[in-house]
Amino acid sequence: MRLTAYFMPTLKETPAEAQIVSHRLMLRAGMIRQASAGIYSWLPLGFRVLKRIEQIVREEQDRAGSLEMLMPTIQSADLWKKSGRYDDYGKEMLRILDRHDREMLYGPTNEELITDIFRDGARSYRDVPKMMYHIQWKFRDEVRPRFGVMRGREFLMKDGYSFDLDYAGAKRSYNKMFVSYLRTFARMGLKAIPMAAETGPIGGDLSHEFIILASTGESAVYCDRRFLDFDVLDRDLDYESDLEPIVAEWTKLYAATDDKHDPAKCPVPPGELLEARGIEVGHIFYFGTKYSAPLGAVVTTPDGEQIPVHSGSYGIGVSRLVGAIIEASHDDAGIIWPDPVAPYHVGLINLKVDDANCTRICDDVYGKLKAAGIDVLYDDRDERPGAKFADMDLIGLPWQLIIGPRGLAAGKVELKRRATGERHELSLDSALSKLIG
Amino acid sequence: MRLTAYFMPTLKETPAEAQIVSHRLMLRAGMIRQASAGIYSWLPLGFRVLKRIEQIVREEQDRAGSLEMLMPTIQSADLWKKSGRYDDYGKEMLRILDRHDREMLYGPTNEELITDIFRDGARSYRDVPKMMYHIQWKFRDEVRPRFGVMRGREFLMKDGYSFDLDYAGAKRSYNKMFVSYLRTFARMGLKAIPMAAETGPIGGDLSHEFIILASTGESAVYCDRRFLDFDVLDRDLDYESDLEPIVAEWTKLYAATDDKHDPAKCPVPPGELLEARGIEVGHIFYFGTKYSAPLGAVVTTPDGEQIPVHSGSYGIGVSRLVGAIIEASHDDAGIIWPDPVAPYHVGLINLKVDDANCTRICDDVYGKLKAAGIDVLYDDRDERPGAKFADMDLIGLPWQLIIGPRGLAAGKVELKRRATGERHELSLDSALSKLIG
Repeated sequence: MRLTAYFMPTLKETPAEAQIVSHRLMLRAGMIRQASAGIYSWLPLGFRVLKRIEQIVREEQDRAGSLEMLMPTIQSADLWKKSGRYDDYGKEMLRILDRHDREMLYGPTNEELITDIFRDGARSYRDVPKMMYHIQWKFRDEVRPRFGVMRGREFLMKDGYSFDLDYAGAKRSYNKMFVSYLRTFARMGLKAIPMAAETGPIGGDLSHEFIILASTGESAVYCDRRFLDFDVLDRDLDYESDLEPIVAEWTKLYAATDDKHDPAKCPVPPGELLEARGIEVGHIFYFGTKYSAPLGAVVTTPDGEQIPVHSGSYGIGVSRLVGAIIEASHDDAGIIWPDPVAPYHVGLINLKVDDANCTRICDDVYGKLKAAGIDVLYDDRDERPGAKFADMDLIGLPWQLIIGPRGLAAGKVELKRRATGERHELSLDSALSKLIG
Repeated sequence: MRLTAYFMPTLKETPAEAQIVSHRLMLRAGMIRQASAGIYSWLPLGFRVLKRIEQIVREEQDRAGSLEMLMPTIQSADLWKKSGRYDDYGKEMLRILDRHDREMLYGPTNEELITDIFRDGARSYRDVPKMMYHIQWKFRDEVRPRFGVMRGREFLMKDGYSFDLDYAGAKRSYNKMFVSYLRTFARMGLKAIPMAAETGPIGGDLSHEFIILASTGESAVYCDRRFLDFDVLDRDLDYESDLEPIVAEWTKLYAATDDKHDPAKCPVPPGELLEARGIEVGHIFYFGTKYSAPLGAVVTTPDGEQIPVHSGSYGIGVSRLVGAIIEASHDDAGIIWPDPVAPYHVGLINLKVDDANCTRICDDVYGKLKAAGIDVLYDDRDERPGAKFADMDLIGLPWQLIIGPRGLAAGKVELKRRATGERHELSLDSALSKLIG
């Protein structure tokens, strides 16, 4: 993409309303604009990151055997009255009267609706186990929305649901999601640590939060240092195998959020305890028959008995992750995207667009990188080099390829790795083969 | 995908509430379920079709040079008051009070918001031309929602917007969208005919509807028969070239919807007039400075003057297209998906799952097709052949590969093309090479 044809309105000043670094950087990088309090438009650059994250979540859900579908944003209040949550939810739920004065709401989550869909379509034990998910916008009418997309009112979430015959089956589904979450966050370049959690308004008996570590994180967390050495899980993991050993390995070490941590009772010696700050990016629950019983989602067992199914729900904050990744990966100059979620892989900087030879070579390089399937953002604007360097550092693409007349005269271009700041002067061919690989 | 692991609750009976064929078939095929009046959940099979259509729309928008971004579903009423449309829209607009009693709404379209985003990010003539689009859920609170996804309340739409310095520039953008729409619908296997249209509540001076022909279409249309022989536009079309000749070719022939057609004035001789029924699937508008002027979306000209930009908007009904394609392509047995939008390419039918040899061969074929990158839905259920045939015809995948013990004993399998009903008995290897190509 040529920057002259793009829409990336970067800001030099730090917007006064942004209290945390991810919010500041997303506004400054032209990734988002506030539409109203806690509600954002995703400009082209931000949208690309959102889609990258969404796609990783999707691939790992599919791999774990969950079926993608899509529920609407607007729901009828009826099912929520049956489950008893219509009154529980309070003012965070955006309630709406339609033109016929029917009570509707903008879904903050979907346990009721998916349970009703399963009830309608499933009959017997042969219809379980089943996992389904969707990636859809949700709304929570926060009193004081803040922190940008980290705590917006309209936010994109992957929420998945499992249906099983009994606890043993439900635990197998829970384990699949537990393991797929570890893979999902690792693929984004994040270290996510599962921590036993309260179940809150979703309800249920078993629950884990997935917390990523970031020095600017929203809350204090305490965990065993050995978590840092845990390996990323294999891509070819068989989700139909027994996953309990993996789950056991990841849950046997101490890990607690601030509200659960008690220094007096902590079993980890101080030298081995990691005190850090964290951001919640996923949350999984097992809640048994909490929704299936009142909503009548029953199946027939092999013995002919009718029983309500055992369920769990599994959330990942997709739009929140955009902010969370920035909180975990930035420096004073701007964002540092992990390669798998970067909006473009290479930023190509033409230092002097009015130099015909330099521009001819840059155009040629741009064509070659695109032809090789590399996502390139090409700064072909008529701007000072300083402004181009600052913008490219700010938006945080993994690689910068810097081409100017002086270097070309010496047969050199410059390749910079954003994460480390390392710069190498090398021939154009070497730079291209390094990027194309 | 194995049908035993899928969630595709087909129905034998025709649901009483469905008045039109696409609605009936989508419910019967387990593609959608109604969540509340005019609001649908997309089950896995329907979701796949929706995504296929969305992806074709996206690719053709990108090819035409429009930038993808995403605006929120919930908007503040403020901008709509500035443009004057807050009062114009009436009860079709879903109006919401948030917890602080601020007036919000569920966006039925996005001219105001995108104009405000452009205003905030653009400064000068160098920032135009610019086209941006998003694919987002919209809401229109219809009095009597009906016809399934063809006229739902919550619906998925691609809406794009162009920003130019003057009418000449805006007409170039309009032409790009005009041509990209022809390509978009042709890629879905549809014949879409552009018809001059009223501009309605969007406003403006120049507008075309894109209507596809379907015997069960919602309205009568009249057009020159020669449209039927028009060629699909080339994939490598240069959108920066002069597109006026293409647009002129497609607009010089007579084409009119029922409300505009006057038999007394129609210039086409009766023998050359095609009287058909049609479904609107796209609509494009040029409206000049209608939104840029009140919302202050101005840019500086090369002469230093500040002028409001000239804009157009361009819509495609993405969820509506799912229904429209079915209206245009079905028979008594069910849906007939055009290949490019089919949820799966091949339906593999195992006629006897309790025959070990038959199942071993079916499993093997399933693995080979998947390994070759073919999307396969594998009916591995323990069901009668008749039920399997009926379901496979109903869901309308382009190819059916039917394998049973009797055929295998003779070294044969059966390959059926859904659209024509042609069946061929051939060797397994021949069938595989025909499908894998």
